Amino acid sequence: MQGMSLVVVGSVAYDAIETPHGKRERTLGGACTYIALSASYFTKTSIVAVVGDDFAAQDHTFLASKGVDLEGLEHVSGKTFFWSGVYSADMNDRTTLKTDLNVFADFQPKLPASYSSRPYLFLGNIQPALQSGVQRQMPGVRFVGGDTMNYWISDYRAELLETIRYWDFLLINDSEARMLAKENNLRRAAQKILDMGPNTLVIKRGEYGAMLFRRDTLFIVPGYLLEDVFDPTGAGDCFAGGFVGYLAERGFDLRNGHFDVHELHRAVIYGSVMGSFCCEEFGVDRFRTLTRKEIDQRFEEFRRFTAF
Amino acid sequence: MQGMSLVVVGSVAYDAIETPHGKRERTLGGACTYIALSASYFTKTSIVAVVGDDFAAQDHTFLASKGVDLEGLEHVSGKTFFWSGVYSADMNDRTTLKTDLNVFADFQPKLPASYSSRPYLFLGNIQPALQSGVQRQMPGVRFVGGDTMNYWISDYRAELLETIRYWDFLLINDSEARMLAKENNLRRAAQKILDMGPNTLVIKRGEYGAMLFRRDTLFIVPGYLLEDVFDPTGAGDCFAGGFVGYLAERGFDLRNGHFDVHELHRAVIYGSVMGSFCCEEFGVDRFRTLTRKEIDQRFEEFRRFTAF
Repeated sequence: MQGMSLVVVGSVAYDAIETPHGKRERTLGGACTYIALSASYFTKTSIVAVVGDDFAAQDHTFLASKGVDLEGLEHVSGKTFFWSGVYSADMNDRTTLKTDLNVFADFQPKLPASYSSRPYLFLGNIQPALQSGVQRQMPGVRFVGGDTMNYWISDYRAELLETIRYWDFLLINDSEARMLAKENNLRRAAQKILDMGPNTLVIKRGEYGAMLFRRDTLFIVPGYLLEDVFDPTGAGDCFAGGFVGYLAERGFDLRNGHFDVHELHRAVIYGSVMGSFCCEEFGVDRFRTLTRKEIDQRFEEFRRFTAF
Repeated sequence: MQGMSLVVVGSVAYDAIETPHGKRERTLGGACTYIALSASYFTKTSIVAVVGDDFAAQDHTFLASKGVDLEGLEHVSGKTFFWSGVYSADMNDRTTLKTDLNVFADFQPKLPASYSSRPYLFLGNIQPALQSGVQRQMPGVRFVGGDTMNYWISDYRAELLETIRYWDFLLINDSEARMLAKENNLRRAAQKILDMGPNTLVIKRGEYGAMLFRRDTLFIVPGYLLEDVFDPTGAGDCFAGGFVGYLAERGFDLRNGHFDVHELHRAVIYGSVMGSFCCEEFGVDRFRTLTRKEIDQRFEEFRRFTAF
């Protein structure tokens, strides 16, 4: 495995999912799981998460088989985070049927000593104060950022602003960006968010693609056009894993003052590629067979269908 | 003016428009007007349309000043087509308040003799049988296509299918494409539409950009990110004008068997450029000042923000 290693913090869960293509009663999920699986194709990836004593040995084995470092996966007494949801016929809407936080409710991320010198950190969607706590445990981090959600934006705004102030990048969807900036126009919303701290903002737009904003660059990519979307669960997290995983692989370093901004553009493409693969099967199943060769082929496909 | 000349058929109208940025009581509009104004930056453009005796001399003068050939603009007794609409706060929805077809209700397109040998034809959104009638008056046409709408797709389906069978390209929005193909997935919908006759399908997705489908190519471009959308009226028609206008300028000829498919991709970019300019002022006002230099600069901007 090439590149510099990455730490990912977030949820590991079991999901019950229903889409027009079928139904799964209990399948491995959680943001941290998707991000780590996706990033594992690019760089050594270590996770910080918590599961209950119902966590299956086969899921542990699967993650380990993809090279994911599980030293920071805490096992505690109780049940693993459980989520269940159902998608609309066109899959543009989903309804959450159940969210049982279980052991995740008291999650206090603790980093193994071996993680503290890792250069790349992705903070998945958890309470902002916990995200800050993790960042403080990695004083030598060179590239740090993460995700958040509407709940933290509306109800923990001050805490969130204090947290993202120290991030290199923020990766959210378009409605979250509008909510955070209190501005409907995305171009203006992005400028306001760049004033909050992150030097790089990535806005995910689902099937419509993604955008990257910095003071020195703007990059926009359309979504990959899938013939069949089986299950969109985790696509945004796989985007995140591809984005940060590729940058870690390349040893991308914003802080040394000379970097190629096109590496960030290519990271957005790898994010889009990983998000598109995620939708091709239920849950994390696509990653049971996906190869790096297929990933690079789809990257080249993005070149072809955007060339003019 | 370089390139091969283009004939555009469709509506010339007066619009009353209200957006969050303001209000206009009566401003020059209509699909044919927007398409012709946009195309006039690329090629000699002649229109076929009808107006009433309330059509203002200043609007005639404005179109003529842009080089639009008005020989086929029929003046009849009565009132010009009038449309009025209001946009929602985020401008993603609009409500039609009034549609008075007036003289447009009995529109029977008649081509001046001088038009019959023109090589490029764009058939704006009118009844499919009328579109076919115009095409029959131009037996030597080399590149022909057009637009349609949900009403013709649902209530005049057989007539529409018989019409587009002889088109080189069809240019519609995503919901119309889904409706025409009776298929929700755009990739599969596009394949079904290509089976109906047109060798080239362009799908407009509003702020999310556009896609071009052919058996030999797929091209996708994201939308231009405007800081302010003043008035989206006519943006799709300006896209059409840029698309077909650029191809006419280049003397693009599908039928001679050797053409550069990337010219079609660039035509989609020019379409996107023209649609974006259209939104920057009310009605057709942006075209009162817009220069070809600004158009080419925005084309280059598209290159920069999509490069990776």
